[in-house]
Amino acid sequence: MTVSSFAAIAQFAPVRFESPLLHASGDDAEGSLFITDADRIRFDISLNEAGPQPASFEPAGARRLLFYDPPQTRAAIVTCGGLCPGLNDVIRALVMELHHWYGVREVLGIQYGYAGLVPDTDCPPRPLTVADVDDIHTHGGTILGSSRGKQGVGRMVDMLVERRIDMLFCIGGDGTLRGAHELAREIRRRGLPIAIVGIPKTIDNDIDLIYRSFGFQTAVEEADKVLDCAHMEANGARNGIGLVKLMGRESGFIAAHATLASGDVNYCLVPEVPFDLGGDNGLLAHLRRRLATRRHAVIVVAEGAGANLIGDTGRRDASGNVIVNDIGLYLKEAITSAFAEWNEPVSIKYFDPSYLIRSVRANSSDSIFCGDLGRHAVHAAMAGKTDLLIGLWHGVFTHVPLEAIVGRRKKINPNGNLWHSVLASTGQPSSMSNIDAATTPTQD
Amino acid sequence: MTVSSFAAIAQFAPVRFESPLLHASGDDAEGSLFITDADRIRFDISLNEAGPQPASFEPAGARRLLFYDPPQTRAAIVTCGGLCPGLNDVIRALVMELHHWYGVREVLGIQYGYAGLVPDTDCPPRPLTVADVDDIHTHGGTILGSSRGKQGVGRMVDMLVERRIDMLFCIGGDGTLRGAHELAREIRRRGLPIAIVGIPKTIDNDIDLIYRSFGFQTAVEEADKVLDCAHMEANGARNGIGLVKLMGRESGFIAAHATLASGDVNYCLVPEVPFDLGGDNGLLAHLRRRLATRRHAVIVVAEGAGANLIGDTGRRDASGNVIVNDIGLYLKEAITSAFAEWNEPVSIKYFDPSYLIRSVRANSSDSIFCGDLGRHAVHAAMAGKTDLLIGLWHGVFTHVPLEAIVGRRKKINPNGNLWHSVLASTGQPSSMSNIDAATTPTQD
Amino acid sequence: MTVSSFAAIAQFAPVRFESPLLHASGDDAEGSLFITDADRIRFDISLNEAGPQPASFEPAGARRLLFYDPPQTRAAIVTCGGLCPGLNDVIRALVMELHHWYGVREVLGIQYGYAGLVPDTDCPPRPLTVADVDDIHTHGGTILGSSRGKQGVGRMVDMLVERRIDMLFCIGGDGTLRGAHELAREIRRRGLPIAIVGIPKTIDNDIDLIYRSFGFQTAVEEADKVLDCAHMEANGARNGIGLVKLMGRESGFIAAHATLASGDVNYCLVPEVPFDLGGDNGLLAHLRRRLATRRHAVIVVAEGAGANLIGDTGRRDASGNVIVNDIGLYLKEAITSAFAEWNEPVSIKYFDPSYLIRSVRANSSDSIFCGDLGRHAVHAAMAGKTDLLIGLWHGVFTHVPLEAIVGRRKKINPNGNLWHSVLASTGQPSSMSNIDAATTPTQD
Amino acid sequence: MTVSSFAAIAQFAPVRFESPLLHASGDDAEGSLFITDADRIRFDISLNEAGPQPASFEPAGARRLLFYDPPQTRAAIVTCGGLCPGLNDVIRALVMELHHWYGVREVLGIQYGYAGLVPDTDCPPRPLTVADVDDIHTHGGTILGSSRGKQGVGRMVDMLVERRIDMLFCIGGDGTLRGAHELAREIRRRGLPIAIVGIPKTIDNDIDLIYRSFGFQTAVEEADKVLDCAHMEANGARNGIGLVKLMGRESGFIAAHATLASGDVNYCLVPEVPFDLGGDNGLLAHLRRRLATRRHAVIVVAEGAGANLIGDTGRRDASGNVIVNDIGLYLKEAITSAFAEWNEPVSIKYFDPSYLIRSVRANSSDSIFCGDLGRHAVHAAMAGKTDLLIGLWHGVFTHVPLEAIVGRRKKINPNGNLWHSVLASTGQPSSMSNIDAATTPTQD
Repeated sequence: MTVSSFAAIAQFAPVRFESPLLHASGDDAEGSLFITDADRIRFDISLNEAGPQPASFEPAGARRLLFYDPPQTRAAIVTCGGLCPGLNDVIRALVMELHHWYGVREVLGIQYGYAGLVPDTDCPPRPLTVADVDDIHTHGGTILGSSRGKQGVGRMVDMLVERRIDMLFCIGGDGTLRGAHELAREIRRRGLPIAIVGIPKTIDNDIDLIYRSFGFQTAVEEADKVLDCAHMEANGARNGIGLVKLMGRESGFIAAHATLASGDVNYCLVPEVPFDLGGDNGLLAHLRRRLATRRHAVIVVAEGAGANLIGDTGRRDASGNVIVNDIGLYLKEAITSAFAEWNEPVSIKYFDPSYLIRSVRANSSDSIFCGDLGRHAVHAAMAGKTDLLIGLWHGVFTHVPLEAIVGRRKKINPNGNLWHSVLASTGQPSSMSNIDAATTPTQD
Repeated sequence: MTVSSFAAIAQFAPVRFESPLLHASGDDAEGSLFITDADRIRFDISLNEAGPQPASFEPAGARRLLFYDPPQTRAAIVTCGGLCPGLNDVIRALVMELHHWYGVREVLGIQYGYAGLVPDTDCPPRPLTVADVDDIHTHGGTILGSSRGKQGVGRMVDMLVERRIDMLFCIGGDGTLRGAHELAREIRRRGLPIAIVGIPKTIDNDIDLIYRSFGFQTAVEEADKVLDCAHMEANGARNGIGLVKLMGRESGFIAAHATLASGDVNYCLVPEVPFDLGGDNGLLAHLRRRLATRRHAVIVVAEGAGANLIGDTGRRDASGNVIVNDIGLYLKEAITSAFAEWNEPVSIKYFDPSYLIRSVRANSSDSIFCGDLGRHAVHAAMAGKTDLLIGLWHGVFTHVPLEAIVGRRKKINPNGNLWHSVLASTGQPSSMSNIDAATTPTQD
Repeated sequence: MTVSSFAAIAQFAPVRFESPLLHASGDDAEGSLFITDADRIRFDISLNEAGPQPASFEPAGARRLLFYDPPQTRAAIVTCGGLCPGLNDVIRALVMELHHWYGVREVLGIQYGYAGLVPDTDCPPRPLTVADVDDIHTHGGTILGSSRGKQGVGRMVDMLVERRIDMLFCIGGDGTLRGAHELAREIRRRGLPIAIVGIPKTIDNDIDLIYRSFGFQTAVEEADKVLDCAHMEANGARNGIGLVKLMGRESGFIAAHATLASGDVNYCLVPEVPFDLGGDNGLLAHLRRRLATRRHAVIVVAEGAGANLIGDTGRRDASGNVIVNDIGLYLKEAITSAFAEWNEPVSIKYFDPSYLIRSVRANSSDSIFCGDLGRHAVHAAMAGKTDLLIGLWHGVFTHVPLEAIVGRRKKINPNGNLWHSVLASTGQPSSMSNIDAATTPTQD
Repeated sequence: MTVSSFAAIAQFAPVRFESPLLHASGDDAEGSLFITDADRIRFDISLNEAGPQPASFEPAGARRLLFYDPPQTRAAIVTCGGLCPGLNDVIRALVMELHHWYGVREVLGIQYGYAGLVPDTDCPPRPLTVADVDDIHTHGGTILGSSRGKQGVGRMVDMLVERRIDMLFCIGGDGTLRGAHELAREIRRRGLPIAIVGIPKTIDNDIDLIYRSFGFQTAVEEADKVLDCAHMEANGARNGIGLVKLMGRESGFIAAHATLASGDVNYCLVPEVPFDLGGDNGLLAHLRRRLATRRHAVIVVAEGAGANLIGDTGRRDASGNVIVNDIGLYLKEAITSAFAEWNEPVSIKYFDPSYLIRSVRANSSDSIFCGDLGRHAVHAAMAGKTDLLIGLWHGVFTHVPLEAIVGRRKKINPNGNLWHSVLASTGQPSSMSNIDAATTPTQD
């Protein structure tokens, strides 16, 4: 399909102006930001052609032939790691699809994460019926409980064998999926027909090769409400500063999207874009200039931002994630000190809403998405697929081998459209580093 | 990437079971519902190869060279048709992008739709500054007002010329975009360099070639709340029936998605799947059997469903849409009469929440999406693109020629995954027609 | 306590101005609207003095000596009439207080209202444990189901005797409480020690002698959201009219309070203040003048308003309430016709959100209030009190004999503070009747 | 009105049982908890009798004669202290009532609290028109800004004189009202006719002689949502503990009401009821026993609770409020340490939602209440009343002399109905002190 363009009409031809965005984006960003006339987007993204194949995914969905005989099948479900909106929706969808459409009679809920998947747990699996899950999607959390941390792979496979479990659905993040992959490898080593299917859970939406993860949209919705509160607090005091720490250890997707949804954020700080505090182009100097004229500011900081400033603690949590120092509290104190030194009073209100966001019920969009994930996971397992997770690529549900995603993160491209939109919304300088951006225009 | 499958391992090989979904879906649906081993999804959907090209879209986005000189440019915005969550977000994004990033100094808001786009309107355009639009996204509706109906194309072009408008952003549905296309043609006929860029608005999400339209997710969220109320009312009475009419004149996307989000709906009726009222496989007989055992039911009906039962009124509204008889009230009376005849008391509560859904503020996801649409529309117009709208295809924003979508609708595929999920969620029979589904299994 | 007043200081004494409210309120309203220097409010409203007593209530609350022996006591709960936010909260509080604090072991839930309180019901009572009610307050509706209509008093007492029920908690409106009173009389006639305690349920908040009824605040909150939608729809069209029908058959409290909460209503129509449609001081003429200058209007009408215009249908519903013609649809058509005749286009959007309001979960304030009502009802019954309901008077929970309230309604005083506030908020004329208010000043 | 009671009927007479609440409430609480047959509640609480008068309030409301001539009057409004839902609603009501009903033409908004009420402020007062305040009630915060802290009384009066302000409306808490009282005294000393009217703002609802303060119900509503999140987090982990710190420096009303609204809290800690951490009857021992059987717990702590444990910091904030150590963080660490010592893993999630609660928009009930407060404040000032605030007593709006409330707090009565309801809801022991409650029954 060809689009009309005055620029292509001889009558209007000679005049062409260079885009002001070239300057605004501050550097050689045009490689990724600007579209050229040769760029096109495929109408059809499915493939079933002969000959050499481009990179592709296996699509998820129901298969006509099954590997397991449904009435003889015993399935199990486990939820791991921190809460995320939609956990109960996924559990519900798994149970409903297994029972109603495939006729699987036994579904077990493993309690408190992998800690409940060992033979000697004192919280044994509980049977899950349709009645048990009927209205669990109206509440946040997970009815199965969760935990962080690993268990011995061998002991977990022992448990699966002992309980005669044919398929295990693992709902969790990077560490959980790594564990699931190890389970699948051990199962393969023993030559057992037990399927391991992952449903990726990352509220940060930063698992590689996956366009969207469940709970993310709900998290942005809740974060947006917090930003509104921060805006009110900032506006309500002279030199008021609303400082909000949001989730995002290695990527700033929640911070960026919540910033766009809100429209009231003045500085959005993410792990992908390092910044300085001091110096003429540092955050503090920009903040000072803004307060002098506008008297208030809203700052959003992803928990993994500013790693160059604070370093990590050298420790890891039970899931193996690096524990960083708290950038939110660090910023709060740095700002307080700086303005005290300048003898300019500020009123900082600090918000750390993480648990308030993780524990809410999924919104409608995430709830529907969780239903799709659950159903596709059942289709995959029943067909005998294993060692994979259910992904989404260009709007299509896919099968992704677990080893393809373990340890790989999606990140914001600082030269791409998302970050450009954030800069447009906040008016913050494209760089607050004193080294690489000495001449950056700003909109303080 | 290759996914592991037990079915492909010799050791487990001989056993394969036919999927129960084959029977549940009730007919030869496997063509579309089941995935085969040969199916794949492309990793990369962009194109810039030589040789014969497959069908494709022009991607949206900033261009390095502009057709208009920003400081000399005058833009205008018009909103048409019924309310839809996100209208103010789009207006805000247009104004912000034009002012802040391109340096356009004059943006006019056309008042009350195309009715305000004629030279003799008594509601002349109002200037829109950044301050005017700063917090309009926190409210539903449209600050410009809207209207249905057409105006003479010639007179509208006269107005654009008279007011020296260089680019017009038209936010509206099918009729509005048809009008925009006619405007672009008349402009081309007169040889004028005035760009016409559409932003598609259909709360029903049924514009062809466009994956998602703004306001749809918000509408599903609000509809989900109504379904919860209907469920409570149904449960609160013996033989209680909650009957909810939702938007969807020609497609049932809102009804289907709200049904999935809710989990409490027992019958979802959409235009794409005709149904009978009477007969042993008709809605009334199924409803009767359900009430006998379960004592309550929730029914969702899209406003365009059951056209085979009620026909249209033979009239059209000001936008040219056919006015159908009210299927909601029709069903309410048909059910009441039938149960009265059977001497079985029912308590029907009827919900018609259309305006309550259309007028709310956009949720975060739609708000961000509207921001993207607005920014891309500005990029397109500034580059001199015209007679197009901003679409979304496989997650990428695109330029779609207006003539490609006018009069074409997206519909639910009754053999596809969405409808299968609805059937799974409701437990309703895959057909409630007496002709084609005599042996359909049901889950009353 | 004496308050300082400049008017009482000699130095400032001679100057006193007559209040403009005297004129604004349009007639001899000063009797009720204005406060005089002699008026006072008691600090202490409790009484235990000797001598002649003023009118007073018996306070609710725990008694030290009980009539029933808790471990031997069997209680029952019934919910009747339409849904109202908080029903589940009351049920929960009754069960919790009976079990946890009094040690009552058996509580029965009567199903589907009085229809479930007859010996031959096919929906027999269900036992209610603490686990059964633990989280029911997170959902709207009633877990017991409800129904309208009466059953024979004798048969209901037979059922109480048969099931050895010692105390019955009746949650319902005027008709239900009348039924409860008849039950208590029949029980007294038979000399039985069965306590009947009512918890008044009227979403309209119009039971006499009771300051607040549960669900009312939640209803106003929900109605306020609807008014916001109506405002958006009205503003979104030229000569847009948002017309909202709210609950209130005999009193306009929901309409009045929602109007105050919203701040966007232009005309609030209630049963207590008759109005004309036609004539120079009728609603239509005022509306026409308003649209000419302001282009939009929001109208709220209580379902019982305008009875002078439409009359009733001559029928009663199962609860014995008179069925009136639908004033909302009547107004919609009258306005449409009038403006058609004047050849002035209007765009009316009609909202009838009744069931959407009745079926939601109670807000926190109502939830707490329901807990108090439930606990006080248990205290009353355990002490052997009967034939009463739990009320609230000047902030104190009270015992009110059932016969004192049956058939009596609380109404808005058109000369009082509430209505004055509504007039102040809407700017509507204090009278839209052509007879009594020829010279009323208006704020169209 | 006399209520029927089986206990008063001879036929049923001899049997009376002692209430189990006598034991449950654990001590000689019957003095306040139990009602006796002699107690009564007055029907009419107004007074205008001759002779000796009981303690009473002057009722608020419009007066027929005014002290100020409206067209010549200049009013000012100031908001002080922390944010509270409803500030904008009060501002709006003041402006609307002054303009629309009294015809006052000039209303000034003082910016950033008392800091803007001095002659040399660099944030001078801004005029407030009806258009300025029309939709401010749809947002939280205060459009005037606020600040903590005092200014010289003399300089503030100078400013009032300089700007020819006739009446000042002061919206704020204890410190603000103390300042207002000092202003009124200085004005009296100088013999000026400038009225000072306070509108009490305390989100904690603990101002003496006032039944309800604005924003409190909204705060409870928001706190309830946080408790729901805490419950989900607690349930989502083995030995999960949700620990929520809520507002309440000297009183626990928000904590107590939110606990009642939620129904999911297991321990509610307030300033009025001291508790121990260690010892067999201390919080830690109770918590340990609960986790052993129930595996999760939700704890709510008012910020002023446990003062016996932590002491204050010896400092005061700008408003003069004592700064206490953070009981929330203290508890978090004490619990973590204790369970680490016992070698029993716990998973604590800590919530400190203060700013998230203070900054939201008022709910409908508070919005209406703010409207009433604003209107009554205008009535009082126009009549020449001064040195007072607008209160609510037994449902009636009152005038309370400022000096009567300064420095006096309302507190929860540990022997009263509210606290009894909290104990009933949580099942926590009535005392967690090792000294006074060695034999308290518990419901861990």
